Amino acid sequence: MNDFEDISLYKEGGDVGIVEFKDYFCNTPLRFKLGGELQSFNIRYETYGRLNEDKSNAILVCHALTGDHHCAGVNSLEDRKSGWWNNIIGSGKPLDTNKYFIICSNCIGGCRGTTGPVSINPATNQRYNLTFPAVTIQDMVAAQERLITHLGINKLKMVIGGSMGGMQVLQWAIDFPDRVERACALATTSRQNAQAIAFNEVGRSAIMQDPIWEGGNYALERVPSVGLGIARMMAHITYLSDIGMEGKFGRDHRRISGEEIFKPSFEVENYLHHQGQSFVNRFDANTYLYFTRALDLFDLRLNGGSLESAFKDVMAKFLVVGFTSDWLFPPAQNREIVKALLRIGKTASYAEIESELGHDSFLIHSPKLYKLIEYFLND
Amino acid sequence: MNDFEDISLYKEGGDVGIVEFKDYFCNTPLRFKLGGELQSFNIRYETYGRLNEDKSNAILVCHALTGDHHCAGVNSLEDRKSGWWNNIIGSGKPLDTNKYFIICSNCIGGCRGTTGPVSINPATNQRYNLTFPAVTIQDMVAAQERLITHLGINKLKMVIGGSMGGMQVLQWAIDFPDRVERACALATTSRQNAQAIAFNEVGRSAIMQDPIWEGGNYALERVPSVGLGIARMMAHITYLSDIGMEGKFGRDHRRISGEEIFKPSFEVENYLHHQGQSFVNRFDANTYLYFTRALDLFDLRLNGGSLESAFKDVMAKFLVVGFTSDWLFPPAQNREIVKALLRIGKTASYAEIESELGHDSFLIHSPKLYKLIEYFLND
Repeated sequence: MNDFEDISLYKEGGDVGIVEFKDYFCNTPLRFKLGGELQSFNIRYETYGRLNEDKSNAILVCHALTGDHHCAGVNSLEDRKSGWWNNIIGSGKPLDTNKYFIICSNCIGGCRGTTGPVSINPATNQRYNLTFPAVTIQDMVAAQERLITHLGINKLKMVIGGSMGGMQVLQWAIDFPDRVERACALATTSRQNAQAIAFNEVGRSAIMQDPIWEGGNYALERVPSVGLGIARMMAHITYLSDIGMEGKFGRDHRRISGEEIFKPSFEVENYLHHQGQSFVNRFDANTYLYFTRALDLFDLRLNGGSLESAFKDVMAKFLVVGFTSDWLFPPAQNREIVKALLRIGKTASYAEIESELGHDSFLIHSPKLYKLIEYFLND
Repeated sequence: MNDFEDISLYKEGGDVGIVEFKDYFCNTPLRFKLGGELQSFNIRYETYGRLNEDKSNAILVCHALTGDHHCAGVNSLEDRKSGWWNNIIGSGKPLDTNKYFIICSNCIGGCRGTTGPVSINPATNQRYNLTFPAVTIQDMVAAQERLITHLGINKLKMVIGGSMGGMQVLQWAIDFPDRVERACALATTSRQNAQAIAFNEVGRSAIMQDPIWEGGNYALERVPSVGLGIARMMAHITYLSDIGMEGKFGRDHRRISGEEIFKPSFEVENYLHHQGQSFVNRFDANTYLYFTRALDLFDLRLNGGSLESAFKDVMAKFLVVGFTSDWLFPPAQNREIVKALLRIGKTASYAEIESELGHDSFLIHSPKLYKLIEYFLND
């Protein structure tokens, strides 16, 4: 029985194994959309699979708010956790490393190796912190374009990503229309709405009012972990769904006594505290500010007033996928992207996947999603 | 035209005018469900209208998490803000002060005059703070029952409230079946679910991790306003709705510059900060901990396993109202209360009101709600 299960697991696709990040140091200045520039910057990235001779099999994966360049495989044999999209990348998986050359880079402004607020500004020998330029989704894409050009790739077979990654997908298709063959955006939106801005602002307020934050100039040995933890706990609720949380945790709790009434007692409380704590250990508070603000600023309608006019020059084929229980970027916000594309005669498909896992559905094992992506790549 | 508008406004009902709170000091000890007791305690309350001779026209209003005893009228001529449910209470209004004697008290554990964590413990001459007993919805109702008995009222014509107030309504009908004629619960639930517990826990964490909180022993001149403000801002999002916020604020914002990128710029951000700030000025952080925990602990199914068994002895007629855009206590959670009542042959009606105003719909002008309550009172 166990042997059989192993075989069936294997048939789902193989992992990419041990991977190492690479760094691309770009010496051409990057001007940011809202002002400011970097004279030079680093982009940390990973690749899986091999670039074919005519460089036509490259797929760019764009990460979400708290993701990074490490989306598949492990960094060492001791590494117990695979990259954040390991379920979708590998031999025989939807992003098949036997066929495609997969690239994923940490976004500009990030905290995982790409130049961001936590990096040293060579002009001052101090961390950038809040002197880092304001980051928009357009800037993330502009930095990625440098990397793609550096890798000698003219046209991407596909750009794919969910949530903030999905915004980058849309921006790629708009800003570099002749360099994107397929655009696959999952659980995303063409504009951050009021509720999503509101949640981000509460998270930022928790960080910026943490006395340890000190205007962004905290010591790296003593970060504003309370504020960042609160921000993450709250945001994590928005990544799940009411029905999903009820199924997973319900009201399960240890015995609640009058003496320890405020001690986390419900399973869902322990889960959230764990999420908050592990996040604080891996993520920079200033990057969290910059990236949530990039989300808030995202509104494709700015470019000429309508979504249709924003998309008027795109050449890519689109696949947009919404998830029924996603209330952060609900199905309707995904659907309207495709509606706008179709209205102006572009090639676009919308799919809606039934799921109780909320916004995070795009990250989780889903044979339906895998099939959609495979079809889209072969279409 | 203006005169005409004035007349039409007047026809909607008159206000109760200037009101004064009263205090009932109860010397009979109150034992709390999870342990602990108060030897004596104060209940602050207001009343509107006149109790009739046979004391059969009393209506008890139960307040929600951050409400208080002041639900109608003004406290002085200079008072620019009426009580929190002024739209529903007054001459010719659904809770008609020409017909009914309306009572509303600050819940036990509160911070607006009724004994709570901020009160002085006569045994120690110190504030109770976290030595205050754990508060449940049952304890709130037990304290209210003392007041009702003190006022010489045997049977309440109606108990009415929304949200946490709705929980008290259900608990009244269960704990004192022969003293409640009608139970009207709005935008509520028979059990706090995982998502609602999760939001409360984030709020409590923000307060309890505020360094100024100091285990609940903060100076009243220097309260944990950062934590409490964050908790309120976040909770306030859950009281509205996605579509409601989009309609009210959308993406309206002042010009956003790269230099002041993290300054609140969107209308929705300014609104939330205002909500957080004004809350901090009127509410005690420890009471917020106690009351949110009372919400989390609320689960009528504890009493015997099923909702039906919890309701088996109730004698009241029920009206439960859900609001379509309420995602904190969604319609389904309201509907299932009535379903359970009907399954065991009780008299109960469920109504669902179309609204884009989210959980707070029950507090807001709604002729449909007024009609429902009027019919229910005359039924």
